[in-house]
Amino acid sequence: MPSMKQWVLANKPTDLPTVSGPNPTFKLETADVPKPSSSQALVKTLLLSNDPAQRTWIVPDADPNRLYAPPVQVGSPMSSFALAEVVESGSPNDLAVGSLVLAPTNWTEYSVHEIKGLQAIKPIEGLDLGHFLGALGLTALTGYYGIKEVVGATKDDTVVVSGAAGATGSMVVQIAKNIIGCKRVIGIAGTDEKCRWVEKLGADVCINYKKDSFEQDLIKETEGFVEVYFDNVGGSILDLMLTRMKRHGRIAACGTISNYNRPDPVGLKNFFEVVSMRLHIHGFIVLDYIHKFGDVVAELTQAWKEGKIVVDESMQTVVESKFEDIPNTWMKLFEGANTGKLVTKIVA
Amino acid sequence: MPSMKQWVLANKPTDLPTVSGPNPTFKLETADVPKPSSSQALVKTLLLSNDPAQRTWIVPDADPNRLYAPPVQVGSPMSSFALAEVVESGSPNDLAVGSLVLAPTNWTEYSVHEIKGLQAIKPIEGLDLGHFLGALGLTALTGYYGIKEVVGATKDDTVVVSGAAGATGSMVVQIAKNIIGCKRVIGIAGTDEKCRWVEKLGADVCINYKKDSFEQDLIKETEGFVEVYFDNVGGSILDLMLTRMKRHGRIAACGTISNYNRPDPVGLKNFFEVVSMRLHIHGFIVLDYIHKFGDVVAELTQAWKEGKIVVDESMQTVVESKFEDIPNTWMKLFEGANTGKLVTKIVA
Repeated sequence: MPSMKQWVLANKPTDLPTVSGPNPTFKLETADVPKPSSSQALVKTLLLSNDPAQRTWIVPDADPNRLYAPPVQVGSPMSSFALAEVVESGSPNDLAVGSLVLAPTNWTEYSVHEIKGLQAIKPIEGLDLGHFLGALGLTALTGYYGIKEVVGATKDDTVVVSGAAGATGSMVVQIAKNIIGCKRVIGIAGTDEKCRWVEKLGADVCINYKKDSFEQDLIKETEGFVEVYFDNVGGSILDLMLTRMKRHGRIAACGTISNYNRPDPVGLKNFFEVVSMRLHIHGFIVLDYIHKFGDVVAELTQAWKEGKIVVDESMQTVVESKFEDIPNTWMKLFEGANTGKLVTKIVA
Repeated sequence: MPSMKQWVLANKPTDLPTVSGPNPTFKLETADVPKPSSSQALVKTLLLSNDPAQRTWIVPDADPNRLYAPPVQVGSPMSSFALAEVVESGSPNDLAVGSLVLAPTNWTEYSVHEIKGLQAIKPIEGLDLGHFLGALGLTALTGYYGIKEVVGATKDDTVVVSGAAGATGSMVVQIAKNIIGCKRVIGIAGTDEKCRWVEKLGADVCINYKKDSFEQDLIKETEGFVEVYFDNVGGSILDLMLTRMKRHGRIAACGTISNYNRPDPVGLKNFFEVVSMRLHIHGFIVLDYIHKFGDVVAELTQAWKEGKIVVDESMQTVVESKFEDIPNTWMKLFEGANTGKLVTKIVA
């Protein structure tokens, strides 16, 4: 029976995950390549989606009722979404060998899936496959759902987007400014270079949160306060933004990456603003909107063809990695190393 | 010209307000009794409404844009709502001397108001006047608006109410259980005695947050998690409740009294629950619902007459105070000294 490599969870981390030292978070193992049944396909993982949310599935003492994906068990492969190629099909009429699919492959070389649960992908000429994980994938759906449905941004709104150079944020900026036509879009990102890129995507301005002047800069750019905040980061930036919202302002709470590797999260101290300014905060998860995946990708693909949004190499950071380097590449998410979607391209 | 007493703001406090010492928060002064114009009435303050929100109007360095009532200026009378009696009317046909009204009298013996801005009160036989400030007043409107409109509680919901023995909380418990018919109502209060009273009002159970076992008690009583949380207190209880909400749970954010006297508020560390459980948090202020005042008071008065809700002496803590003791009586709010509405009855 052929064997394959897989990365399994070895220890649940309380701070920054590791792949070495006495208590490594992940461990490389060998396993048998699974065999598909007549309703299944065996796929080979080509491109891995790197998502901050994965960090939340490996926390210690997690109550399975409180996570939106099942927690990864110690000894099981690390959960991950990917673009994969069908290498063996239990039902070739339904899904041919060689087809490309989106699938929860986890950090394994090969995996089997029910064919009806797989999302087939048709390559588009001139478009790198990685974008099906980012600008035209689940990440895009996250941004679209959050800004259009969860907080219902309109032309009359000024919108602030944190993590604006990240995979979700960079789509939110474009959807808000170039599709919805929001009055003003203000990005927040971690370097001047990222900020200039976010402005190229359509943001009226982008502020570098690592500068000493960040708080003053944000206050200046949000003079008169803002209607909408799309929060990708939580922590101190969210806390500051609570003080910059207009009365009845709406906040889309998409993630709290700033706290994911902290054993003791930064607490929100400005919560009284929620009362005094009658703020609405809505947490959301893209999975609740997954039934719209096809429609939204079609709409965004059309917007790209019409030149309304950018879907080019600037929208992703593709890292060619040997299978052995998968965790290290994923960890780049927490170093702010990527602009746009961080994609792992598995190479021999 | 006749003179009168008034309490003015002397220093904006960063922690517990004081009336003595080197930097007293409030100062007793003498002023001229104002004279009403032909469109105004002069009223004498009889009963003062004591509200935690007043604390938020005297914070230092407040941005007037961020408060829902104008901040009190140093040297100006402390803001307060009251039940008052008309002692001189510029237009007796519109408002006769001797009428009772609700008015923003502040902490003054006498004050003038535009007649058309005053809410006249008709005493109800068998009902203490104080209830027009509490169970049948603005406090009731706050609870009604929050639980019925802001989070739209229904028969299918389990509802947790903090500050359940307070003026707003005790009305929320009754409205949720006895008017809406919520499946289960869980109160949180600060003594066992208060808890037993909250259960008498209709709560299925009430938990004492000052007990060492509070966290375990709350977890036990919210097994399976809850749909609705009416938050009167903020801080650590809100933080804990974020972990006890069901998916898509709704939180009405009414106030954060637990932080009002802290220079450094307790921060919320469990905000990620808002994302993972898709929570909705809505801050609100009763002033946005003030146009419904008459309707809601009529509905609650009817509910009281039908025996659905309790409006008796247990629903208020009336403290007879000389004018000189007004600040000390107000401060009882922060000692948990009241059950139901804390009303100051001014006596000679």
